[in-house]
Amino acid sequence: MVKVGIVGATGYVGGELVRLLTRHPQAEITYLVSESYEGKTIGEVFPHLHNWGNIVCQKLDVEALAEKTEVVFLALPHGVSMDIAAQLLAKGKKVIDLGADYRFDNLAVYEKWYIKHTQPQLFSQAVYGLCELNREKIKTANLIGNPGCYPTTAILGLAPLLKSDLVELTNIIIDSKSGVSGAGRGLNLGTHFPECNETLKAYNVGKHRHKPEIEQELSKLAGEEMKITFTPHLIPMIRGMLSTIYLNIKPGVTLEQVHRLYQEFYQDEYFVRVLKPGVLPETKFVAGSNFCDLGLALDQDSNKLMVISAIDNLIKGAAGQAVQNMNIMFDLAEPRGLDYPGIFP
Amino acid sequence: MVKVGIVGATGYVGGELVRLLTRHPQAEITYLVSESYEGKTIGEVFPHLHNWGNIVCQKLDVEALAEKTEVVFLALPHGVSMDIAAQLLAKGKKVIDLGADYRFDNLAVYEKWYIKHTQPQLFSQAVYGLCELNREKIKTANLIGNPGCYPTTAILGLAPLLKSDLVELTNIIIDSKSGVSGAGRGLNLGTHFPECNETLKAYNVGKHRHKPEIEQELSKLAGEEMKITFTPHLIPMIRGMLSTIYLNIKPGVTLEQVHRLYQEFYQDEYFVRVLKPGVLPETKFVAGSNFCDLGLALDQDSNKLMVISAIDNLIKGAAGQAVQNMNIMFDLAEPRGLDYPGIFP
Amino acid sequence: MVKVGIVGATGYVGGELVRLLTRHPQAEITYLVSESYEGKTIGEVFPHLHNWGNIVCQKLDVEALAEKTEVVFLALPHGVSMDIAAQLLAKGKKVIDLGADYRFDNLAVYEKWYIKHTQPQLFSQAVYGLCELNREKIKTANLIGNPGCYPTTAILGLAPLLKSDLVELTNIIIDSKSGVSGAGRGLNLGTHFPECNETLKAYNVGKHRHKPEIEQELSKLAGEEMKITFTPHLIPMIRGMLSTIYLNIKPGVTLEQVHRLYQEFYQDEYFVRVLKPGVLPETKFVAGSNFCDLGLALDQDSNKLMVISAIDNLIKGAAGQAVQNMNIMFDLAEPRGLDYPGIFP
Amino acid sequence: MVKVGIVGATGYVGGELVRLLTRHPQAEITYLVSESYEGKTIGEVFPHLHNWGNIVCQKLDVEALAEKTEVVFLALPHGVSMDIAAQLLAKGKKVIDLGADYRFDNLAVYEKWYIKHTQPQLFSQAVYGLCELNREKIKTANLIGNPGCYPTTAILGLAPLLKSDLVELTNIIIDSKSGVSGAGRGLNLGTHFPECNETLKAYNVGKHRHKPEIEQELSKLAGEEMKITFTPHLIPMIRGMLSTIYLNIKPGVTLEQVHRLYQEFYQDEYFVRVLKPGVLPETKFVAGSNFCDLGLALDQDSNKLMVISAIDNLIKGAAGQAVQNMNIMFDLAEPRGLDYPGIFP
Repeated sequence: MVKVGIVGATGYVGGELVRLLTRHPQAEITYLVSESYEGKTIGEVFPHLHNWGNIVCQKLDVEALAEKTEVVFLALPHGVSMDIAAQLLAKGKKVIDLGADYRFDNLAVYEKWYIKHTQPQLFSQAVYGLCELNREKIKTANLIGNPGCYPTTAILGLAPLLKSDLVELTNIIIDSKSGVSGAGRGLNLGTHFPECNETLKAYNVGKHRHKPEIEQELSKLAGEEMKITFTPHLIPMIRGMLSTIYLNIKPGVTLEQVHRLYQEFYQDEYFVRVLKPGVLPETKFVAGSNFCDLGLALDQDSNKLMVISAIDNLIKGAAGQAVQNMNIMFDLAEPRGLDYPGIFP
Repeated sequence: MVKVGIVGATGYVGGELVRLLTRHPQAEITYLVSESYEGKTIGEVFPHLHNWGNIVCQKLDVEALAEKTEVVFLALPHGVSMDIAAQLLAKGKKVIDLGADYRFDNLAVYEKWYIKHTQPQLFSQAVYGLCELNREKIKTANLIGNPGCYPTTAILGLAPLLKSDLVELTNIIIDSKSGVSGAGRGLNLGTHFPECNETLKAYNVGKHRHKPEIEQELSKLAGEEMKITFTPHLIPMIRGMLSTIYLNIKPGVTLEQVHRLYQEFYQDEYFVRVLKPGVLPETKFVAGSNFCDLGLALDQDSNKLMVISAIDNLIKGAAGQAVQNMNIMFDLAEPRGLDYPGIFP
Repeated sequence: MVKVGIVGATGYVGGELVRLLTRHPQAEITYLVSESYEGKTIGEVFPHLHNWGNIVCQKLDVEALAEKTEVVFLALPHGVSMDIAAQLLAKGKKVIDLGADYRFDNLAVYEKWYIKHTQPQLFSQAVYGLCELNREKIKTANLIGNPGCYPTTAILGLAPLLKSDLVELTNIIIDSKSGVSGAGRGLNLGTHFPECNETLKAYNVGKHRHKPEIEQELSKLAGEEMKITFTPHLIPMIRGMLSTIYLNIKPGVTLEQVHRLYQEFYQDEYFVRVLKPGVLPETKFVAGSNFCDLGLALDQDSNKLMVISAIDNLIKGAAGQAVQNMNIMFDLAEPRGLDYPGIFP
Repeated sequence: MVKVGIVGATGYVGGELVRLLTRHPQAEITYLVSESYEGKTIGEVFPHLHNWGNIVCQKLDVEALAEKTEVVFLALPHGVSMDIAAQLLAKGKKVIDLGADYRFDNLAVYEKWYIKHTQPQLFSQAVYGLCELNREKIKTANLIGNPGCYPTTAILGLAPLLKSDLVELTNIIIDSKSGVSGAGRGLNLGTHFPECNETLKAYNVGKHRHKPEIEQELSKLAGEEMKITFTPHLIPMIRGMLSTIYLNIKPGVTLEQVHRLYQEFYQDEYFVRVLKPGVLPETKFVAGSNFCDLGLALDQDSNKLMVISAIDNLIKGAAGQAVQNMNIMFDLAEPRGLDYPGIFP
């Protein structure tokens, strides 16, 4: 049994980590940290976890945490994880950071979009934890920068094309839509029910922090610097994320060719499902699961390829992918603890 | 491995049965019947079941069905199950009927509220499958009338009180609220999104078919004929059911006494959670699970006890309870295949 | 043109007052107070009011406010209105308080459920502004305690019965359901979208502050002290409120008798619509309007009469009724500025 | 008073026409046609219109209809309007068709995307009723093809740019999102509450019928043949439509330049609101109103201009625009009957 600690256990991502890991046949939660709910059991904080919820939330004490765990999940706001990760690594622990602090290769990019970084020397050992693409590196990593939710949809949606000769790598547009849980558990007028139900809006247009993260990973895959256009939208639903990606297809390329490419690229991947041509993904069919569904369509008229990518933002977009990373790091079967369907309707 | 057949596999309850049973460690789905989707795999009908969905939906052929299965779940409209159940029983199969055809003791009551019954001779061997209350009979039953969703909330909510001397057995009011999935997958103007979202209504006031079902079971528990008032409401959410039950409490009885009674009554029940006094249940904390949460409150001023009972209407209110019944019938651990938390948020 | 001021203009009720009054043919908003948005135009605060929104929000300055207005609406948390109302009255202004500070006849009751009152000497001149029942007193009032939303549904739903001999006045249960906007614009985990969408719960059972308000008014109408049981529930929709009221009907009384009583009682009321027997109200059909729809049903079996009462909580339950009160106070046609249908779907 | 008839009065668009026109100070509904609800009053069909609802729905009788009306709104499925429009025109009536039958200039395009047209000779007299752009022609028209909802957002969003030299006219992508009411009142599994709530999907990718309609109008405005990419998505909300439009901006063009262009272009338009740079529209702020809000953003990094366009699909996208067309045709003040804000929250 892998001994697991979670810091930031009482946010939405933290709660999902607890839910997934309490049911994981080869992991055991041995330490939970929550400053806001210190002293409460996790079952009091999250009544749905009642029967699995005797473990008590602690204040952060890195010493005690390190003593009781082999791997620690950090589900914290960016900036807060950097030092904790460093301390845990120094004690020989493995760290999976679900925030942005260890997702970047380039200090300047991180500091432009976020804040000053105190541990840039760790960048070189951090692995970007998109499991399907970086599996080999993850196996031996001690520090994982778990991908953002939008980047997960975008990168999985685009990866097969980047080395192909089927599309142009300019003029790529990623129009993304997210359920409200992606904004977290912190209170905000924009996520107050009467304000965000029965409405629809784009936000942070041209300046969302997931844009440089997407560009970094696409550039590495393509082997050249890539720029994309990215627009996130807030949708009145709790879970689910869907990205509609537009690319210029090269003359003469058919939808079947593209489909074959995707099928081959993902043929051994348990959690990526390439749908038949003409079938489009829908967030409801991945909600509650770790799957990413990919659909393809072609507008011959305007020579545009559309790739549509759907995930549950809290699972494949956060906690589920983090557990998948843990499975890879500890040489467990990759789907362990994650091999069940979502809930419908 | 118990060999299982499901008739009516492509409605919401059928879909939940497939989902629960594909993941059940001691059951195996060997036959699926769906007239509407004959020839399709269950994964095509329900994309969320894609990875578990190779089994093909068949037309009903009782012979073939009986040959391949030990127990058959019937998730059909009332009236349709009666003869199929009889044929399967005649072939020595066990039957769990999720409709109303075998829930009643009294032919006249059934025929008043439903239609003419063709197999009333089976009434005496059918057991009302409310697991927590009828476990002993269920163990040896061949035919289960799986309870309706509203009755599950009402009966579990009231059972501890009926033999106690703490409340009056008249003037009981059950004000129930249900998510829209309870109305099934059939199309109807009342469940068309723009008509039933952002609104609230009572329906079938004083004439819902679950009223006699509730009265029958309460009367048996109380040992006297009981009449209740029952009003169902439709709520703009997919899953979840909550009943607010009002009773006149006897003079001098305290909330603590009532709470102790409930705790003792349900102390060995895995799926019934009696909340602390002052804590009220919420459907979100049982959604996606087989739990029934019960909360208690007292209005001293008007001498009313309120019992609030919450379930997931498709799980404890239908498919989950049916699987729980199967577990009891086949002497499996009762929580098997059902022992996980719901999903939050 | 009546010159109108609004204090607390940027909450939900305040926003509705602005919307209704900008369009009122015989009123003119001359002063808006909002501490949180001082200096902003109301069109910046509420983009839907953009074309009507040039008026600038001010800090509270009772002097200036009194100078520019004839009547002032106070849409403030309880406790905050008491002194402002007193100051405005002293300057000869009329005041419509949408909070609870002037709804009570009895100081002890107010102070038990709320806080210490600084202006109890004003109780005797304050009129409870339920327009249909207190119209004569409202005509000459200077200070209106505008009813709470739950009390509006309950009192309009019960008023015709209280002097009749058709029902018992004990054992009355009011099971109420409210959309989330009723909780106001202040941030709260309970109204954070992922927490309150797709769920259902009762809250403040037996201790909601609208209970004594309902009891006070019912007692006055009945001419005897009445106790009721009241349970509010939170429903995942923005607007709308529905109360299901249960009473014991006297032997032999028919639904037609009750229906006739209601029709006669409300025959001259523009804003109360008594539905035909068998037709039940639904919040969607009053949302966006000042109407209260009343439906009646009888469960002969248990001798229970059900009265179902539906309003838009922000309009007939708050801002609309306040405008209706203003119309009465200033001798305008009562439906002026309120005579349009809601929006469907 | 303009005498108005509505054919197809009991769908969502028909219901909105009735609501808007009953309150229009210079119009009077004199004839309602509904095959499905013949003999019922409109107040019985739509309880929110109760107080305005005495008019009885008739079967279609063109003779009687023409006799009682000056202008007829046709809110019918495509194909059904063509002959009725011809008959009414022959009797000297004005016709506003809310379907697609008279939106196209080119018979072949119509017949490729829809069905065989029986009255192509009327194409030359039909005017595409996008009020802001075709006002002069509408003034004297007898036959209006009222625009589709998606085209309204797209064309209003793009019109200012098409004659400018600020953007390229290739590579235009229109990613649109619609509430469920856009799919109409007909029953469909895709709009069944449990299937379309809490989910998100694209549909008809590359083959939605609004694509050629958008292309036709953009081509006329640009003076050259234009091709666009258009992807509609279904959003779990009742009303509202938002299009996110992507264009390649020419080198050196600033957001301020674009903003100035939009402000000038729409400076005299009551119903088009150009938001300040950096402010993005949201459907909630136009819901329930006839406004179209336009927001602009620039991604300097990828040289993409984003135009975001929001309407209420049933009002500016259908019934409201039709009434606006009527106002223009009958020389009434253009905002008459439409000059009120939407409802928030």
